[in-house]
Amino acid sequence: MGAFTQPELLATLETLDPPDWSSVSALAHRIIDDAVGHLGRVRERPVWQPLPEEIEALYQAPVPDRPTPLEDVYRQVKDTVLAYPMGNIHPRFWSWYMGSGNFTGALGDFLAAIQGSNLGGGRHAAALVDQQVVGWLRDMIGFPEAASGTLVSGGSVANLVGLTVARNAMAGIDLREEGVAALTEPMRFYASDQVHSCHRKAVETLGLGNKALRRIPTDSRYRIDLEALRAAIAEDRARGFRPACVIGTAGTVNSGAVDDLTALAGIAAEENLWFHVDGCIGALLSIAPENAWRVKGIERADSVALDPHKWLHAPFEVGCALVRDRAKHRETFAVSPEFLQGMPRGIASGQWLHEFGFQTSRGFAALKVWMALMEHGIAKFGRLIDQNVAQAAFLADLVRSNPPLELIVEPEINIVCFRYAPQGLNEERLKETNLEIMLRLQETGVAALSDTTIRGKHCLRAAICNHRTRPDDLNLLISEVLRIGREIAQS
Amino acid sequence: MGAFTQPELLATLETLDPPDWSSVSALAHRIIDDAVGHLGRVRERPVWQPLPEEIEALYQAPVPDRPTPLEDVYRQVKDTVLAYPMGNIHPRFWSWYMGSGNFTGALGDFLAAIQGSNLGGGRHAAALVDQQVVGWLRDMIGFPEAASGTLVSGGSVANLVGLTVARNAMAGIDLREEGVAALTEPMRFYASDQVHSCHRKAVETLGLGNKALRRIPTDSRYRIDLEALRAAIAEDRARGFRPACVIGTAGTVNSGAVDDLTALAGIAAEENLWFHVDGCIGALLSIAPENAWRVKGIERADSVALDPHKWLHAPFEVGCALVRDRAKHRETFAVSPEFLQGMPRGIASGQWLHEFGFQTSRGFAALKVWMALMEHGIAKFGRLIDQNVAQAAFLADLVRSNPPLELIVEPEINIVCFRYAPQGLNEERLKETNLEIMLRLQETGVAALSDTTIRGKHCLRAAICNHRTRPDDLNLLISEVLRIGREIAQS
Ligand SMILES: Cc1ncc(COP(=O)(O)O)c(C=O)c1O
Ligand SMILES: Cc1ncc(COP(=O)(O)O)c(C=O)c1O
Repeated sequence: MGAFTQPELLATLETLDPPDWSSVSALAHRIIDDAVGHLGRVRERPVWQPLPEEIEALYQAPVPDRPTPLEDVYRQVKDTVLAYPMGNIHPRFWSWYMGSGNFTGALGDFLAAIQGSNLGGGRHAAALVDQQVVGWLRDMIGFPEAASGTLVSGGSVANLVGLTVARNAMAGIDLREEGVAALTEPMRFYASDQVHSCHRKAVETLGLGNKALRRIPTDSRYRIDLEALRAAIAEDRARGFRPACVIGTAGTVNSGAVDDLTALAGIAAEENLWFHVDGCIGALLSIAPENAWRVKGIERADSVALDPHKWLHAPFEVGCALVRDRAKHRETFAVSPEFLQGMPRGIASGQWLHEFGFQTSRGFAALKVWMALMEHGIAKFGRLIDQNVAQAAFLADLVRSNPPLELIVEPEINIVCFRYAPQGLNEERLKETNLEIMLRLQETGVAALSDTTIRGKHCLRAAICNHRTRPDDLNLLISEVLRIGREIAQS
Repeated sequence: MGAFTQPELLATLETLDPPDWSSVSALAHRIIDDAVGHLGRVRERPVWQPLPEEIEALYQAPVPDRPTPLEDVYRQVKDTVLAYPMGNIHPRFWSWYMGSGNFTGALGDFLAAIQGSNLGGGRHAAALVDQQVVGWLRDMIGFPEAASGTLVSGGSVANLVGLTVARNAMAGIDLREEGVAALTEPMRFYASDQVHSCHRKAVETLGLGNKALRRIPTDSRYRIDLEALRAAIAEDRARGFRPACVIGTAGTVNSGAVDDLTALAGIAAEENLWFHVDGCIGALLSIAPENAWRVKGIERADSVALDPHKWLHAPFEVGCALVRDRAKHRETFAVSPEFLQGMPRGIASGQWLHEFGFQTSRGFAALKVWMALMEHGIAKFGRLIDQNVAQAAFLADLVRSNPPLELIVEPEINIVCFRYAPQGLNEERLKETNLEIMLRLQETGVAALSDTTIRGKHCLRAAICNHRTRPDDLNLLISEVLRIGREIAQS
C-alpha cells in the first residue's frame, strides 16, 4: 500500500457533518414544529390508511449514488412516511399489543443519538442512566436490589435472555462449553397453552427444540391449570426428562389472563424449577394501585421479562430482562473471565454491560424511559395503567348492553374479546362478518382492532394499551361496529 | 369487577401528552440549538472525561413518584449526560470499534419515535422503508435480489441470526422441533482464532456449545489458514462430527484482517458447508472504490452480518443480517404456518417482518440509515471508508518514522496496532507503560485508544472508523504518545 502524505489526505477530506450547520438547524426547527403538530393533531387523522401505489413504488428505488438536499429527504419522510403510519400512536389504535409512544421519549431518542454513547459498557454517564433505569424497573416489580437486569430490544429478546439463563443454570453441566447434547436427561420447560409465540422461538433457538416446551391446559379464565402442571412435571420425571423451568404469563396476548404467580412460585420451589415470568403485558400492573394485586408473586420469580415499549409507552424499542441471581445472569453471557477486571481508570473502568445479554454494542434506549419517568413520576404511569383496565371494563359493559354484540371473555385487565354475533349465523359466517368489520374499521380510519380465536370462537380483540384513548373513543367503536355489522348483513 | 360509567372515567382522565404543547415545543427548539452546538463544537471538547462522584450519586436515586418539569429533566440531561459521553462522536475517538453518528441520523431516530410504527410488520410506510434499506444493504455486498435480510440491534445479533439459520439449514433433521440433542453427529463450526467473541456467545446460545466452534490458526497476516481449515474439517469428519459452517471474518476486531473470502467460498462449496461472513467491520468495504477488492467473495456467502452503526455511522443501534436463501431464513424463525397468509386488506396485509429474526416488536431503525444514505448518496460513504483506510496507512507511516514507536501489525484496513517501545524494557514493563499512555490520553481528553494483545505483544490499538478524524488529529496522537511515553520514562 502506498502511504499518504498529509496534503494528499487533506485535499479530499470529507465528513458527514454539514458544511453549514445553520441550514441544517433551520430544518431541524421545522421538524420540531411538524412533530408537535403531528402529535397534537393525531386525533383528527385516520388511525390508518391504505398505502397508495405510487408510494410503494417510491420505496423500490435503488440506493442513490449522489446526494439529495436534506430538505428534500425530509419532505419525502413527511409526505410519505409520517402520513402512512401503522397507527399505534392514535387514540383508537387497539390492535395487537403495543404502547402509543410519547413526545418526551422521542426527544430522548434524539438526545441519545446526539450523545452517541455505546451501552456495551464503560465509564460514562449513559451507562449510569442505563443502570438506574434497570434498577427502577427491578424495584417496580419488587425484585431485590441484588438482582441484575439488562435493557434489550423488546419482550421477545427479554424472554430469550431469561430462558437462556434458566437453561444454563438448571443444566447441572457446563452447558456453555458442552452444549445441549451433553445433557443426560432432556430438559422440559412448561407454560400455559396461551403462551406467547416468542417462547417457542426461544426454546428452538436454545437448541432445546419446540417439543421441550410443554403447553399446559388453561382453566376457565385462561390461566395455567396448576393441577395439570403438577401432573405434567411428575409424568416427565417418571419418563426420564429433567423438568427445568416453568414460565408464568402475567397478561396473555389473547385475553390478558394472568397466571396465579404465587402458586407457580410455590410449585417452582417445591419442584426445584426455574420460575420465569413473561410480564411483557402485565408485569407493570405492579405499579398500578387498583390492579397490583393481580401480579402478586412476580417478586418471587427467578427471571422476568417486561416491556417499557408497552405500558410505559416508550417509543420502540425497549424491553427489559431481570434476573434475581446476578452471578447466574453474568455467567450465562460473559465472555471475559472473572479475573479480567477491566481498567482501573479511564473509559474502560466501568462495567461491561454486554456481559448480561446477546448484544455487544448497545444503544442508549434507557434515556427515553428515564426522561418520561422523571417527567411524569411513576405514580402517574400507575394511574394510566389503572385507567386502561377501567376502560376495558367500560368497553365490556358497552358490549354487554349492545346486542347482537357478544362478549367472548370477561376482561381481566385491558384486553376485550368480543364479536358481532347476530342470530342465525354459523361460525364461518360470523368469522367472515367480523373480519370484514375489522377491515372496514381500519380502512375508514376509525379504529384499529385485531382478531383472534379463543377456544374455537373467532372474535375481535381490543387491547387498550393507550394513554390517548378516551371513553368516547370506545363509544364510537361500538357504534361503528354495530353500523358496519348491519351494513354487511344488509348486503 | 365493578364497571365504570363514562363520567367516572372522564373525571380522572389522564394522558402523557402535555396539557400545553407550546411550552414543550419551546423546550424542543432549545434542545435542537443545544444539539447543533454540541456537534458543531465537538472538536473543542475533551474526547472523554472522568465522571465526578456527585454525578454518580445522582444516578443512584430511586424512581420519582411525582412529576418534575420537563425543563428540569432536560437540564439534568444536558449538564450530566451530554457532558460525560463515552466519546465516540469525537474526532479523536479510536477505541474498540464503532461509528461516530451523524446529525441526520439523530433526526431519523426522533422522527421514527414520533411516527411510532412497529416494524414487526404490517402494511405501512415504515415497513417499506425498512425493506428498502435491507435491499440497499443487500445490493451493497452484491447479494442477489432474492436474498432476505433483517435489521437487528447490531453485529452480535446479526451474526446470531446467520448462525441460527446455518444450524437449522445444515441439520438434516427438523431441528426446530427436535433440538440439538437429536443430531446423530455433533455439528462443527469453523472460524479463525481472531473471530469476534460474539460467535462464542452464538454457538453457546444455540445449544451447540463453545466446543462446537473450532478456532483455526491464522497466517502471518492474521487471516484464517486455509490448509489448517481443510485439515480440521477432514479430521472432524473422520471422527464422526458434522462439519456444518465456516465463518469468514471481513475485518477482524484485533487488527482488521480480512480472510480470503473467495477461497473460503470455494472450500464451503467443496465441503458442503454453510458460508457465513462476519462483515461487521469490513463488509461495507464493498462500496469503497479503492478497497472493495479486499472483500471479493463476500457475494458468495450464504449469510452475512454487517453493521450500519459502524462504517455507515448510524447512531446506535442498527445491525443487519442478510441470508441468500430467503426460504431457509424464514423457515428458521417463522412461527405462523405457511398457510396463514395474513389479511388480504388492512394493516395486517403487509409482510410479517418478525418472521426473519428473534424480535416481535421492532423499532424503525431503518429511518436513520435511509435518511443519511439519501442525503449523502452511497458514493460518499464509500469515499469516507477509503479515507479512513488511507488515514490508517498514514498513521502507520507516522509510527514507523517516529522511534521508539513500534508498528505491531502492518494495517490492512483501518486498524493500527502499535506501541511505545523504548529499548531495554521487557514485555511486562512495555505493557505497563503503554497502558499508562492509553489511560493518560483518555484522562487528558486528548484521544481514546484501546489496547489489545497480538501474538503475545501487548499494544495500543487505533481503529479509525470516524468521519470527523483529520490528519492533524493523528499527528497530535503521535506527538502526545511520544510526550507521555517520555514523561513516564522519566518518572
Ligand atoms: C405476552 C407477551 N410476551 C411477549 C411479547 C413479545 O414482546 P415484543 O413484541 O416486545 O418482542 C408480547 C408481545 O405483544 C406479549 O404479548
Ligand atoms: C468483527 C466483529 N464482529 C462482530 C462485532 C459485534 O458487533 P456489535 O457490537 O454491533 O454487536 C464486532 C464489534 O466490534 C466486530 O468487530
